[in-house]
Amino acid sequence: MKRIRFQFSLGYSLLAAFLLGFGHMAMACDPLPSWNEGAAKQFIIEFVKTTTEKRSENFVPEAERIAVFDNDGTLWAEQPMYFQAFFIFDRIKALAPQHPEWQTEEPFASVLRGDIKSALAGGEHALMEMAMATHAGMSTQEFEQIVKDWVATAKHPLTKKPFTEMVYQPMLELLGYLRGHGYKTYIVSGGGIEFMRPWTEAVYGIPPEQVIGSSIKTKFEMQNGKPALMRLPELNFIDDKEGKPVAINQHIGRRPIAAFGNSDGDLQMLQWTGAGEGKRFALYVHHDDAVREWAYDHPSSIGQLEKGLVEAAANGWTVVSMKNDWKRVFPFEWEH
Amino acid sequence: MKRIRFQFSLGYSLLAAFLLGFGHMAMACDPLPSWNEGAAKQFIIEFVKTTTEKRSENFVPEAERIAVFDNDGTLWAEQPMYFQAFFIFDRIKALAPQHPEWQTEEPFASVLRGDIKSALAGGEHALMEMAMATHAGMSTQEFEQIVKDWVATAKHPLTKKPFTEMVYQPMLELLGYLRGHGYKTYIVSGGGIEFMRPWTEAVYGIPPEQVIGSSIKTKFEMQNGKPALMRLPELNFIDDKEGKPVAINQHIGRRPIAAFGNSDGDLQMLQWTGAGEGKRFALYVHHDDAVREWAYDHPSSIGQLEKGLVEAAANGWTVVSMKNDWKRVFPFEWEH
Repeated sequence: MKRIRFQFSLGYSLLAAFLLGFGHMAMACDPLPSWNEGAAKQFIIEFVKTTTEKRSENFVPEAERIAVFDNDGTLWAEQPMYFQAFFIFDRIKALAPQHPEWQTEEPFASVLRGDIKSALAGGEHALMEMAMATHAGMSTQEFEQIVKDWVATAKHPLTKKPFTEMVYQPMLELLGYLRGHGYKTYIVSGGGIEFMRPWTEAVYGIPPEQVIGSSIKTKFEMQNGKPALMRLPELNFIDDKEGKPVAINQHIGRRPIAAFGNSDGDLQMLQWTGAGEGKRFALYVHHDDAVREWAYDHPSSIGQLEKGLVEAAANGWTVVSMKNDWKRVFPFEWEH
Repeated sequence: MKRIRFQFSLGYSLLAAFLLGFGHMAMACDPLPSWNEGAAKQFIIEFVKTTTEKRSENFVPEAERIAVFDNDGTLWAEQPMYFQAFFIFDRIKALAPQHPEWQTEEPFASVLRGDIKSALAGGEHALMEMAMATHAGMSTQEFEQIVKDWVATAKHPLTKKPFTEMVYQPMLELLGYLRGHGYKTYIVSGGGIEFMRPWTEAVYGIPPEQVIGSSIKTKFEMQNGKPALMRLPELNFIDDKEGKPVAINQHIGRRPIAAFGNSDGDLQMLQWTGAGEGKRFALYVHHDDAVREWAYDHPSSIGQLEKGLVEAAANGWTVVSMKNDWKRVFPFEWEH
């Protein structure tokens, strides 16, 4: 009997050693292999340790571990223009046969001639007109399929890669590293919420219910006895600047512990996150790699980062240099 | 050596038996002890089995197991009036010293005289005016604390119990049973989203990010260098009737597999859920127990259920009789 008990505990210990061993192996692996050793990587790892280790004075219960990420320029690229703009132009071309008036009507006529610069000359108003013409007038289900089909075939004009491969490898690792430590990762983007949801789970591991974005209004109606949500050509919410903390509060109802952005459009989200009690983490990705990505901050019509850099310096936020902090940028190798 | 290996596997088997044994015990336990045996309980158990057992033809991957619950009249009671209305009246009394004009101004004057009937005589408009006067003008953080303080002390006028105990025991069991099988449970209520979030996690096990409700607008602003979200006296969204599927799409981005309601205000949510592909579950709680709860369906100024009963019969939805299907109603014993 004594021996059995001894052997049982031996068996138990072997099992425990086996499990712990795996744990140690995982710990020994570099969780952020595409990040160069340096202050940014060190800061991330220290932050995750201090907020997730049980005995840490900065320990955060798992339910409160909310991390929010901007999308354009933070998780995937945004040059030479927002990828959703490529989608809009492709949709205008696809829908042109049903809209003969677009051959002469601006900004559509310019798009159909391939003159994007003229199409965008009308500024915000022209872009909004094109967005409504391509994003509304169908059910949510139909729109989801349109996005899925586009994402499966459309290619970036410079890299010739699918847009969903134009994602930052170091940020994919960061998403996984945070989730591996009990963080819930959210997207909080100025991009269209229903433009992102069809592919964020496959690409980032972020499910639709954790995607927050700009939106147009939808309307519930019965069509031949079947319910449908129809997309209306009417703005519902712009999830940018002051809108980001508002949307975070509306969707999540908790203040995030960590926030990641790349532009002045993310400033209020970083401020809101950083001002919470206890340990917080605010990080800017700085586009300073003209060879492997693009170099821009201000002035810039896309991803302007000026106030954000001032605030980052004043508040001790982490600023990531794509050039120096990232061993690789995209999952594939590419240079200009 | 041979003995050690034998003993190791014995130890392992003992451990396995121990774990499996617990599993069997859990299976043998009634997961819904406050539900009487009958069609409704049977239907719930069959539904959960068929959507969660790996080999079932109706198997639903865990990520898609979304269940949505109305709150007023479905998870907690709503008589003699919506509990949020008690909150509004209590807040008017608390704020009265700062508003001397309310002594003569309707509907506030009636509330301060304790004449609720007259206060509500102004209908929707009067109620909205009182809601704005009590729900806006402070930060989201301040409002959260106000709700927490109220919930901790306010009592139901008939049962003398805290409102957060006026919850249906069978529904608490159903929430736990669904979550135990990988379902994510959401509240989709006409009630105020920020009125519910401060207590839903403790009472229902539903975290703030899974609470959807009606809302007023909020505004991000810096106050002495600190960011705040201020609550504005302006309607943002009414999460009722056609609004429910719209809000589900906006917040969750997936169609639910199961939906639970008690009134015509939940009809579109049940239609939207029920019309999805594959196995779906739509359930109405019917208030037919005049002794242990309240008996009402139509006509009723609260929780009107008329069209819903017709649709339920036409579509084979489950209608739960509180009187016959529920062994107990509240966690405590009470009769009129």
